[in-house]
Amino acid sequence: MRTTAARTPTTPLDEHELHGIDLYWRAANYLSVGQIYLLDNPLLREPLRPGHIKPRLLGHWGTTPGLNFVYAHLSAQVRRRGTDMMWVIGPGHGGPAALATAWLDGTYSEVYPDVGRDAEGMRRLFRQFSFPGGVPSHAAPETPGSIHEGGELGYSLAHAYGAAFDNPGLVVAAVVGDGEAETGPLAAGWQSARFTDPARDGAVLPILHLNGYKIAGPTVLARIPESDLLSLLEGHGFRPRVVAGEEPAPMHRQMADALGAALDEIGEIQRAAREDGAAGPVRWPMIVLRSPKGWTGPGTVDGRRVAGTWRSHQVPLGGVRENPEHLRQLEEWLRGYRPDELFDAGGAPRPEVLAPVPEGPRRISASPHANGGTLLRALDLPDFRDYAVDVPEPGAGTAEATRVCGRYLRDVMRRNPDRFRLMGPDETASNRLDAVFDASDRTWEAERLPGDEHLAPDGRVMEVLSEHLCQGWLEGYLLTGRHGLFNCYEAFIHIVDSMFNQHAKWLKVSRGLPWRRPIASLNYLLSSHVWRQDHNGFSHQDPGFIDHVVNKKAEVIRVYLPPDANTLLSTADHCLRSRDYVNVIVAGKQPGPNLLPMDEAVAHCARGVGVWDWAGTEDGTEPDVVLACAGDIPTLETLAAADLLRRHLPELRVRVVNVVDLMRLQPVDEHPHGLPAREYDSVFTADRPVVFAFHGYPWLIHRLTYRRNGHQNLHVRGYKEEGTTTTPFDMVMLNDLDRFHLVMDVIDRVPSLGVRAAGLRQRMVDERLRCRAHTREHGEDPPDIRDWSWPGRRAGR
Amino acid sequence: MRTTAARTPTTPLDEHELHGIDLYWRAANYLSVGQIYLLDNPLLREPLRPGHIKPRLLGHWGTTPGLNFVYAHLSAQVRRRGTDMMWVIGPGHGGPAALATAWLDGTYSEVYPDVGRDAEGMRRLFRQFSFPGGVPSHAAPETPGSIHEGGELGYSLAHAYGAAFDNPGLVVAAVVGDGEAETGPLAAGWQSARFTDPARDGAVLPILHLNGYKIAGPTVLARIPESDLLSLLEGHGFRPRVVAGEEPAPMHRQMADALGAALDEIGEIQRAAREDGAAGPVRWPMIVLRSPKGWTGPGTVDGRRVAGTWRSHQVPLGGVRENPEHLRQLEEWLRGYRPDELFDAGGAPRPEVLAPVPEGPRRISASPHANGGTLLRALDLPDFRDYAVDVPEPGAGTAEATRVCGRYLRDVMRRNPDRFRLMGPDETASNRLDAVFDASDRTWEAERLPGDEHLAPDGRVMEVLSEHLCQGWLEGYLLTGRHGLFNCYEAFIHIVDSMFNQHAKWLKVSRGLPWRRPIASLNYLLSSHVWRQDHNGFSHQDPGFIDHVVNKKAEVIRVYLPPDANTLLSTADHCLRSRDYVNVIVAGKQPGPNLLPMDEAVAHCARGVGVWDWAGTEDGTEPDVVLACAGDIPTLETLAAADLLRRHLPELRVRVVNVVDLMRLQPVDEHPHGLPAREYDSVFTADRPVVFAFHGYPWLIHRLTYRRNGHQNLHVRGYKEEGTTTTPFDMVMLNDLDRFHLVMDVIDRVPSLGVRAAGLRQRMVDERLRCRAHTREHGEDPPDIRDWSWPGRRAGR
Repeated sequence: MRTTAARTPTTPLDEHELHGIDLYWRAANYLSVGQIYLLDNPLLREPLRPGHIKPRLLGHWGTTPGLNFVYAHLSAQVRRRGTDMMWVIGPGHGGPAALATAWLDGTYSEVYPDVGRDAEGMRRLFRQFSFPGGVPSHAAPETPGSIHEGGELGYSLAHAYGAAFDNPGLVVAAVVGDGEAETGPLAAGWQSARFTDPARDGAVLPILHLNGYKIAGPTVLARIPESDLLSLLEGHGFRPRVVAGEEPAPMHRQMADALGAALDEIGEIQRAAREDGAAGPVRWPMIVLRSPKGWTGPGTVDGRRVAGTWRSHQVPLGGVRENPEHLRQLEEWLRGYRPDELFDAGGAPRPEVLAPVPEGPRRISASPHANGGTLLRALDLPDFRDYAVDVPEPGAGTAEATRVCGRYLRDVMRRNPDRFRLMGPDETASNRLDAVFDASDRTWEAERLPGDEHLAPDGRVMEVLSEHLCQGWLEGYLLTGRHGLFNCYEAFIHIVDSMFNQHAKWLKVSRGLPWRRPIASLNYLLSSHVWRQDHNGFSHQDPGFIDHVVNKKAEVIRVYLPPDANTLLSTADHCLRSRDYVNVIVAGKQPGPNLLPMDEAVAHCARGVGVWDWAGTEDGTEPDVVLACAGDIPTLETLAAADLLRRHLPELRVRVVNVVDLMRLQPVDEHPHGLPAREYDSVFTADRPVVFAFHGYPWLIHRLTYRRNGHQNLHVRGYKEEGTTTTPFDMVMLNDLDRFHLVMDVIDRVPSLGVRAAGLRQRMVDERLRCRAHTREHGEDPPDIRDWSWPGRRAGR
Repeated sequence: MRTTAARTPTTPLDEHELHGIDLYWRAANYLSVGQIYLLDNPLLREPLRPGHIKPRLLGHWGTTPGLNFVYAHLSAQVRRRGTDMMWVIGPGHGGPAALATAWLDGTYSEVYPDVGRDAEGMRRLFRQFSFPGGVPSHAAPETPGSIHEGGELGYSLAHAYGAAFDNPGLVVAAVVGDGEAETGPLAAGWQSARFTDPARDGAVLPILHLNGYKIAGPTVLARIPESDLLSLLEGHGFRPRVVAGEEPAPMHRQMADALGAALDEIGEIQRAAREDGAAGPVRWPMIVLRSPKGWTGPGTVDGRRVAGTWRSHQVPLGGVRENPEHLRQLEEWLRGYRPDELFDAGGAPRPEVLAPVPEGPRRISASPHANGGTLLRALDLPDFRDYAVDVPEPGAGTAEATRVCGRYLRDVMRRNPDRFRLMGPDETASNRLDAVFDASDRTWEAERLPGDEHLAPDGRVMEVLSEHLCQGWLEGYLLTGRHGLFNCYEAFIHIVDSMFNQHAKWLKVSRGLPWRRPIASLNYLLSSHVWRQDHNGFSHQDPGFIDHVVNKKAEVIRVYLPPDANTLLSTADHCLRSRDYVNVIVAGKQPGPNLLPMDEAVAHCARGVGVWDWAGTEDGTEPDVVLACAGDIPTLETLAAADLLRRHLPELRVRVVNVVDLMRLQPVDEHPHGLPAREYDSVFTADRPVVFAFHGYPWLIHRLTYRRNGHQNLHVRGYKEEGTTTTPFDMVMLNDLDRFHLVMDVIDRVPSLGVRAAGLRQRMVDERLRCRAHTREHGEDPPDIRDWSWPGRRAGR
């Protein structure tokens, strides 16, 4: 395990090797231009005609030659050293580079046999690019060797470090674009080096690619004084080496030397840590590559400078089909790479072009790490039942659900020290998962001081106050075949809404690609939720991540709202076993009543939704009204409301329904977990009033059920953006989700109840006023509310 | 206007002044502890008893003394120099500090007269803090002097710089917490200095407050080698000064000197730029303040170190009511500040305590900039009708809607050079708003090179590839009384979902505070939308920001989907005039048919939803079916479908309804823009099938209309996460939103149509196959689809 990632030291590359790299680079550049422009005539065996050109020219040339340059050099080093290497392409728009190099290496044809490494294959490679029914212009799930969607920018470093954690033999080359470098997530990403253990983790080699321009203007890092740039990178803990220029020959020499030295340094850092037990801060190498945007492309088009400016960002020659001069320039550009020197008569790359290409899985485009499902080993999971709280009768005791779950996660961590990590923005203890610290510490490479607790370089609990980094690290870790869980305050998980989008889209596409093997699901455990922001107040109240998640493809997303500790255990176990999903679990951390013994919890979670006859009063007949609930606090209020109704309106037949798996509410043709219509009706009835107490925004329940029978009888209470710093019960009152209001809602919907109910209704109004007044005066909820536990009717029935 | 913000140079503060600062600091600390703990006995005139203590102890002590320290020193400098200064409190959890200092200054009692600057007022100040019905424990809208919610972390620098832009006389002191400093948005925020013009803008003075700990562990910046830290900050373009220690007296001296020198430097930088015309990179001063977490608080509690550790983060003494030793420690702690030296018999601060406090609006807590509505001047807006495209008949010509809007925005910018900015992540030109560059350039302080276009230090178009910075800058700019617009790719606006949440919550609370005057709305112009990601594909397709937005309070949010250029103009004008909203405008940038002459566009936008009788075939009778649409592409497809129906099923009476203002769909009791039920029915009918073609996720329409009459007849088409790199028409086909599918949907919902319709339905299926095949073969849509424009029936009717 503890081998070093890069064998050290090596001699510099010789001129012959550099020539091979240059050939490879020219070939990759040729193939990149071909993808952007050509429908046919891929090898230019005949003069270029308008008919050979794609009708819509779509793609990004600007960053592509730089990426090809990097890839050629990385490959040559891998071939020499036998390094296990993958790359992450921050400038993901440079899809042509990822595709060109994978095709040159032979990987592409192995994955997609219909795109062979010959003239016809080259024609197909070109045609499919950014073409209807073809492949995206970005690095994407369809791209072999990629774990990083090239769409939204900012996550390359986080993904790269996530891939390197617990992969001691791996080097991840992370190309960071200078546009991307302006984003917040990327700016935070530099901190990742402070969380990388040279003994246990692999290494990331950042390559900051300054080509100077974004879509239409310069980039910040390319234009600040170089002394500032180097100071900045040194401040992040790196030793930067600058490779800068335009002339290929000296650039090859510089790059080979810089890369060789960087890999030597990585090797030495790892050797010192692994063999000598060296500890303390590490200065990791990195490379700054300054090369012209659109390098080797047309210098001037229509009298305006293009190469070396932002005008190279997308398609440098825009009118090739219509403008003969553009067509001539394109042909000149393509022939400038001398394709006949690069490809043989059949269209295959000549052997000398392939000189830098490593063997088999060492080819960077073929890295198994970039298809993590092939490396995935299931977690060794303890039996979650062993962590159950004892529930002799519903509500007999209380537990903090996440604290109970923490004990289970502690043992998951103990049993899987090489493949499970827990991520969170400094909230592991706050979310009451601190039992995990019995199994491992927080990852911490920086200085430690007396009095520090639970910090270690090889800690497996990753805390950084950046949700972006937590999410990005975890994605990188999962995509390379490992497992994990992200715990977060519910409100602030919106910080990663857009990252979730990208990951969910990645999973949707991956599921359609047989060669991509399933990976572990992305699991969120959201706690410190909307109903218990007692002191944080309004700014910390937002249950809308669920709404955001359910917009994505049904086959990818799952949402669970376990109402107590045992159901949370069952849910967590289920999620850790699942593959290729995003699982969102919302659970409380505050003491709450224990409701289900473990065997019933398991059965309830398996059903996802169920009638709790122990809580209702229907007694085997049809109910007059259904009280439904989802989420721990709404469940508590619903049970209390059912109890009030039982005591005060014993003739009313009340059914209590609890929903754990939110997707059960959707029709079965909209979500694989959806209840069939008959089953839905048997639970919720087709015609009785349903008062639904929901954890989140109430309209989400309507959005999920609008096609259900009886939807017009469904009345939902949930969070409606009311309340701030206050007591727990005042909070539910402010949003009309409290037990008293639920009783009022029932009375309002069962008019046949008559006068007696009118009296009860008034009493409920009075109860609300009493609670409100008590809270305002004493600063806490009335004792009878505070000490509520379900009175446990089961025994008596 | 062009005065410098800080008069220079000044002599150092003398010992007497430092003593005043210390008194003020002690007083603020006393008031902070009192807020966290005390219900009564605010001046400790009697021995502390459990009954004086709050039942629930909620608040954050850790960061508070440092904030009080900073505030006291800032005040003393302002008093001396007459600087116009505000502050932004990154560690917003330190609400006690913001409240204590505002109360000491007298500002609090001016804003809230019931909380006077006397013993009873102090009692109320203490009691209300983090108490039901009281005030949040964070800086919040309720807090005078604040523009920055203390909830989610990361936006302090962006807000501070936004406040400083175009405020040449203002200095914004931005306290950055070391927890916050780990976030991505904050890490990106340091770049803001590269966008600050010393001639035209005010200055931001960052104060990085390293107290070493987050909730439960150390922070990165506090634990890296100091040489790395300084290198990092220098790399960001700053000249950092370190103030470090624990002993108050030397800390006061260090801080006074560092702050004095920093303000002197700011003055000199501004003088050089404004008087000498100095250009080129500026090295702005900043301060690193290292002070213990929980400074001056209990050193040891229950045998464990608390002051100087993360255990000070919230409430250092947790059991005061029950634990006599804790109660004793609290009393000792409070009395250690010697309250009798600080407050007079009536509870008012003694004059010597108030020595550092500036006069009137110069008090930092009273800064009018922090209540921007008081400074707001309406925009001088050109008549948007002057930019109208000519529409002799619907569909007679095409325009790129955002390009037309860009001309209007150009003149908004010209007329309001001191109070309007356009923000966007490098997409101004891509979103076709480039006419604005005729009025102003991109803000650019770094190096400029030959060939650069539209870059200038005083440019008013702010482009940085960080949506977080764009949003944060704009928020800071709006909150201090100015105007702006954020243009963004639709998919990636999700990056700021959580920032939007916080701003919408701020607006909701502000609206309930009469002393907070209305500010300009936060306007989003989302283009490059889901339907036209021709080459960017799946990763760039997400219309869900609308879903996210509509979860927030109805009185704050507005969503507009103008279908053509003239309706976009009318909408933009409306939004720029509005106050205290978040307006989301989704509009296309690709050529689309011009539909409404300007007078009709204005009327249509004013109604928000309307029947387009020129497009339908109902001829004054009741329709058989309603075709509704919202968004430019769905409108185009709906008009085409209506045209197909008119030609092939002339007997079918079709009504076409277009929705510009999405909130019109909600019931009037749920949104102020909601259509009354009768009006809704008169547009959509109560019982006819409605086929609704929607821009976004289809279920959003159901969520808005589930309580409407006839909802069971509503059938919505929209984006369902299908499609990737392809042609525009293929994209709508993949999501069943195309004209042919809409016709099929109509046929399926009007069974009485019979055999003739069955033939048409098959033809529609065939048309889809024809289009699909053409696209796959030729890489572009069939010419008859591509060249579609509405045939302009109006003239003939």
